[in-house]
Amino acid sequence: MLIHIINPNTTQRMTDAIAAAARAIASPGTTIIATQPDMGPASIEGYYDEAYAVPGMLARIAATKADAHVIACFDDTGLDAARCVTSAPVLGIGEAAFHAASMVAGKFSVITTLGRSIPAIEHNLTRFGLASRCARVRACEIAVLALDDPASDASTRISAEIAAALAEDRAEAIVLGCAGMAALAARLSAQHGVPVVDGVAAAVAFAEGLVRLGLKTSKIGGYAPPLPKTYTGSFAAFAPT
Amino acid sequence: MLIHIINPNTTQRMTDAIAAAARAIASPGTTIIATQPDMGPASIEGYYDEAYAVPGMLARIAATKADAHVIACFDDTGLDAARCVTSAPVLGIGEAAFHAASMVAGKFSVITTLGRSIPAIEHNLTRFGLASRCARVRACEIAVLALDDPASDASTRISAEIAAALAEDRAEAIVLGCAGMAALAARLSAQHGVPVVDGVAAAVAFAEGLVRLGLKTSKIGGYAPPLPKTYTGSFAAFAPT
Amino acid sequence: MLIHIINPNTTQRMTDAIAAAARAIASPGTTIIATQPDMGPASIEGYYDEAYAVPGMLARIAATKADAHVIACFDDTGLDAARCVTSAPVLGIGEAAFHAASMVAGKFSVITTLGRSIPAIEHNLTRFGLASRCARVRACEIAVLALDDPASDASTRISAEIAAALAEDRAEAIVLGCAGMAALAARLSAQHGVPVVDGVAAAVAFAEGLVRLGLKTSKIGGYAPPLPKTYTGSFAAFAPT
Amino acid sequence: MLIHIINPNTTQRMTDAIAAAARAIASPGTTIIATQPDMGPASIEGYYDEAYAVPGMLARIAATKADAHVIACFDDTGLDAARCVTSAPVLGIGEAAFHAASMVAGKFSVITTLGRSIPAIEHNLTRFGLASRCARVRACEIAVLALDDPASDASTRISAEIAAALAEDRAEAIVLGCAGMAALAARLSAQHGVPVVDGVAAAVAFAEGLVRLGLKTSKIGGYAPPLPKTYTGSFAAFAPT
Amino acid sequence: MLIHIINPNTTQRMTDAIAAAARAIASPGTTIIATQPDMGPASIEGYYDEAYAVPGMLARIAATKADAHVIACFDDTGLDAARCVTSAPVLGIGEAAFHAASMVAGKFSVITTLGRSIPAIEHNLTRFGLASRCARVRACEIAVLALDDPASDASTRISAEIAAALAEDRAEAIVLGCAGMAALAARLSAQHGVPVVDGVAAAVAFAEGLVRLGLKTSKIGGYAPPLPKTYTGSFAAFAPT
Amino acid sequence: MLIHIINPNTTQRMTDAIAAAARAIASPGTTIIATQPDMGPASIEGYYDEAYAVPGMLARIAATKADAHVIACFDDTGLDAARCVTSAPVLGIGEAAFHAASMVAGKFSVITTLGRSIPAIEHNLTRFGLASRCARVRACEIAVLALDDPASDASTRISAEIAAALAEDRAEAIVLGCAGMAALAARLSAQHGVPVVDGVAAAVAFAEGLVRLGLKTSKIGGYAPPLPKTYTGSFAAFAPT
Repeated sequence: MLIHIINPNTTQRMTDAIAAAARAIASPGTTIIATQPDMGPASIEGYYDEAYAVPGMLARIAATKADAHVIACFDDTGLDAARCVTSAPVLGIGEAAFHAASMVAGKFSVITTLGRSIPAIEHNLTRFGLASRCARVRACEIAVLALDDPASDASTRISAEIAAALAEDRAEAIVLGCAGMAALAARLSAQHGVPVVDGVAAAVAFAEGLVRLGLKTSKIGGYAPPLPKTYTGSFAAFAPT
Repeated sequence: MLIHIINPNTTQRMTDAIAAAARAIASPGTTIIATQPDMGPASIEGYYDEAYAVPGMLARIAATKADAHVIACFDDTGLDAARCVTSAPVLGIGEAAFHAASMVAGKFSVITTLGRSIPAIEHNLTRFGLASRCARVRACEIAVLALDDPASDASTRISAEIAAALAEDRAEAIVLGCAGMAALAARLSAQHGVPVVDGVAAAVAFAEGLVRLGLKTSKIGGYAPPLPKTYTGSFAAFAPT
Repeated sequence: MLIHIINPNTTQRMTDAIAAAARAIASPGTTIIATQPDMGPASIEGYYDEAYAVPGMLARIAATKADAHVIACFDDTGLDAARCVTSAPVLGIGEAAFHAASMVAGKFSVITTLGRSIPAIEHNLTRFGLASRCARVRACEIAVLALDDPASDASTRISAEIAAALAEDRAEAIVLGCAGMAALAARLSAQHGVPVVDGVAAAVAFAEGLVRLGLKTSKIGGYAPPLPKTYTGSFAAFAPT
Repeated sequence: MLIHIINPNTTQRMTDAIAAAARAIASPGTTIIATQPDMGPASIEGYYDEAYAVPGMLARIAATKADAHVIACFDDTGLDAARCVTSAPVLGIGEAAFHAASMVAGKFSVITTLGRSIPAIEHNLTRFGLASRCARVRACEIAVLALDDPASDASTRISAEIAAALAEDRAEAIVLGCAGMAALAARLSAQHGVPVVDGVAAAVAFAEGLVRLGLKTSKIGGYAPPLPKTYTGSFAAFAPT
Repeated sequence: MLIHIINPNTTQRMTDAIAAAARAIASPGTTIIATQPDMGPASIEGYYDEAYAVPGMLARIAATKADAHVIACFDDTGLDAARCVTSAPVLGIGEAAFHAASMVAGKFSVITTLGRSIPAIEHNLTRFGLASRCARVRACEIAVLALDDPASDASTRISAEIAAALAEDRAEAIVLGCAGMAALAARLSAQHGVPVVDGVAAAVAFAEGLVRLGLKTSKIGGYAPPLPKTYTGSFAAFAPT
Repeated sequence: MLIHIINPNTTQRMTDAIAAAARAIASPGTTIIATQPDMGPASIEGYYDEAYAVPGMLARIAATKADAHVIACFDDTGLDAARCVTSAPVLGIGEAAFHAASMVAGKFSVITTLGRSIPAIEHNLTRFGLASRCARVRACEIAVLALDDPASDASTRISAEIAAALAEDRAEAIVLGCAGMAALAARLSAQHGVPVVDGVAAAVAFAEGLVRLGLKTSKIGGYAPPLPKTYTGSFAAFAPT
């Protein structure tokens, strides 16, 4: 089985870390291909970055033959559009993490990077239908690219938010709200005694499951293939045919 | 990996069929144990049957060492109580099917057996948080134990409900609402050109995923282990210790 | 008029206290029969206890001829199944308390015993439809059977939670979330100057009302009588006929 | 016990019919006083009529010493304001009927008079929190004052809507959406084999219950007594003091 | 274009202030007529005052020929009834403020006068559909007629609530919850660096927009004209014809 | 006042029609600038087209000095990202139409072009909070660029959907779900006797209102300006600075 995981930002170091996290969870028979777009932002922090991450990401997905695709940004950037360009299953890591947490706990809280990302995550929870399972979306106020900087004190601040979530939100599980936090999940889970879900791992595991189930993205309704039409200017090459 | 799938009713023929469906989807390294309770109803059709299915089912789960448990009744009978007796993940087949359908389609409709089961399924959808993803719960009005009776015309009637769901509900995927419909999923999907989700297969695939992820049921909050106390009468042996 | 109130746990002292609370509110022409199951847990604190309380409770309800039945556990344990075995009205004390509080206040908060019971109560509120009327479910963290232990300091801790509910939740009324708190309602109401609702009393009063109205549980849909079928093992005698 | 039932319109014949319906359900020890406002519309069909029904209704409630008050218009006209002028419980007949139907059925449909009243009833259902319990609000398109006109064919048309509600809405109970339909409930229930709830009877029965429970309207928050202030013009006499 | 703004209370000084606020925002070609009812409360603080404000207000609206009407009480007193008496658009200032805040921010908090008004505002938010956009309704606990009293310290207390809303509610904009706060909006916006919406101005601006769009209140459904009928007593003159 | 209206697709004929519709509604003192992106799809029909419409649209908005911006695609393509690049108000035509319809009717139905667009519109309604005001989203199944083709029979099919919405959905107003339907609104409103809202006109009118109110997009939270960072490849020039 071939799973394509795309880091929608263009930071190679992050793509490598995501690939490593994906391979660590993948089943023996699964091959992971990790890519990043040709063009776009070095990290995704807000709606504007999302908008410029999507075109390159969609091109990569369209060009990559795989049994399933994983979008490795917690905002689930471009998820709906990606489902239009392939009949293979496509999972976002935020979406996958919400589903996983819902299977092992009544309520979960999310710890994301910056407060500015909270509204987008709340929108996704509402659309996915799982908002009622989320006690609260919290931010540790550390920038995405600083997460792996030892000077950022990221682990300590995320841990403090987890403690607050358990005490104040009555959360029964924690979802880590950024692909860059993948390496911390196991330790934080042990430390706090609750399930701590990393979306990269969750998405790979569920993508394998969907492939084994033979389920493909529905092609009637919202995820129907794009209609053939003219695209102009520098996007001409992306026109659906 | 060892996955325990329990058929909460006491019909051996259905347990065997569920085991076969589970083994058909399981990964090479996964062993499936299929059980049924010592006591309880021959099929589950409504709240009363559910009530008498749960005690024997919980005893089986408590007595069965496994990496994950699957409850193979679409009503997700006793799911919350089962999560209290083990730290291994426990999935209901209804729950798993709703999550799977939500990953490959915007909206799905459910086709269950009898109309009397619709309210319980709607309650579950609301509690899981996925009610907004379900366009409608429909019934084909065939009893559970008649599903595999060639005289029941089950396949034709389920297919007619699927056609109605696509035309009237704008459903983009279909969830089959009974463990006894597992064998029909592939053919109905091919026939209607949409994803058709069988909960038994979905639950096994996602249970494998949760085990690989190392996620366990949260033990703070609603799924904390039962407190030690006296149980009286014929239930004395079930008392938590 | 004959009202059957069942304490779903097997602690005689609690059954007696519930009977006394029910008789204190009953109209002159009403006879109260109070029972408890033959088998099951000594108190109900979480989903597992609920599962083993229900079979004995349903048997008692089926065997007791009455104009209405009241389930005297705040989790409304087995309410749906109970409605299937009788056409007489069946009320849970949690349900009744939520309705009563909604009639005298815009918003109410609930004070229950242990935090582990909060999710089950929140589920019930959502299903009954009254979640939007509940500002918050709070726990005083006193075990059910310790409520009437003078050493438990129960009254003081419940009172402190009420004060917090009025100040922080903008609650306009309070619902006491355990049958074992019935004796405290009047004093706490006087002390805090707001309606404090005890579910046992509320359920008896509303059950009388439903009987006088001639309303019976609907027998179409989810509360249809159980279908005749075989039950096996030690539950054979409970099979619907 | 003294229960004051106010018909918010000024049609004496309807007040008399409401009084009769109330007395028919009241317990032996209960006295019913039935009144109507000094001023206002002959029937209430829409928001404008409601606005002119309320001032006279509030004056009657303020002037009538009673243990509980019932507002006998299905739109629950002026219910919030009425709760501000008395600490006795106040119930609307729509509200009471929704609660009663929720106690004997999973879902109910409402049959009201004119389609123009549907939005107001839907608003009330949402505010009370019981919208999720209502399958649909239907109209039989018969004017309020024509309900008891033999030429109106009211009973036949209401019966047809009930049949449609059972078949199309999966309703398990019916709520009659006008005080003027009270006399029809028993026959329609027998005819269709489902609970049919009349709000006048339901409100009297629940009002008796609230009085027996000693519950009074909360005086903190939205139902606090009006603040003393000047009212001008022809409303000067209504100023709170 | 002629816009009629009605202050539903009878305090001339407040009508004058509202008129000034409306004229300050109106376009060059717009004429503002500001009125107040002949009868009713000097200020509106709770449901009772609302009930006695509406009859005089409706009469003024019916008697005033205008291209649009604005109801200048933040509770949107009598809004539905007002829409029945005219085909011109009618906007409430609460409603208009909620819509405006929703256009420039993801979430807003409301700062109203007294805590007793919070439930009515929350009801309106739910009915309008915008409750999910409101983070919280807060009260500064200053009476309406004290807002322009220099001794009331109103501005300081409102500012403190805004600071709390930004810090605790994650509000991105603020809605001032009383017509009497109109003069403070600009300064508070500058001080806190977020949009601060005054409902009087918002309603005038949107009313102009609706008139220019040629949109009129729908006359099918809930806002159909009142049916001709008899009104009795001192309200006879208000009978629809 | 300067209002920039951007047609997010690259079809000049549609940009011209949108400009004409905008100018027809604009106030005397308002100047309309109408633009279209340099690159992207000729029409927007689904999520994929949206993804390639946004980058060019954002660049135009960032480069165009205006008092307010209007996004003239009914899917409100890129609305959140657009609000990050300017402090001027930004309105989508779908959003504006939903708000307008909510001001003149209790419930509205939407008539869009293709069924594949329904899910995106439903997502927007949910996010804006106005889903409860929308009775149903319907499709006339005419492609965007065929709307102004006389051979398409567009007007007849839209009219038929309106008739169905009034009869089946109890809609009190209609929203036309595509910028290309702007020219039809007045005639359809006259024909059906209900408000018919065109989003282009509504957005221009409300944008003027927001400018006059001095309201600007909140810059705390989700709409904060993009953080300065590197963008790579062909998107380097779009990097926030």
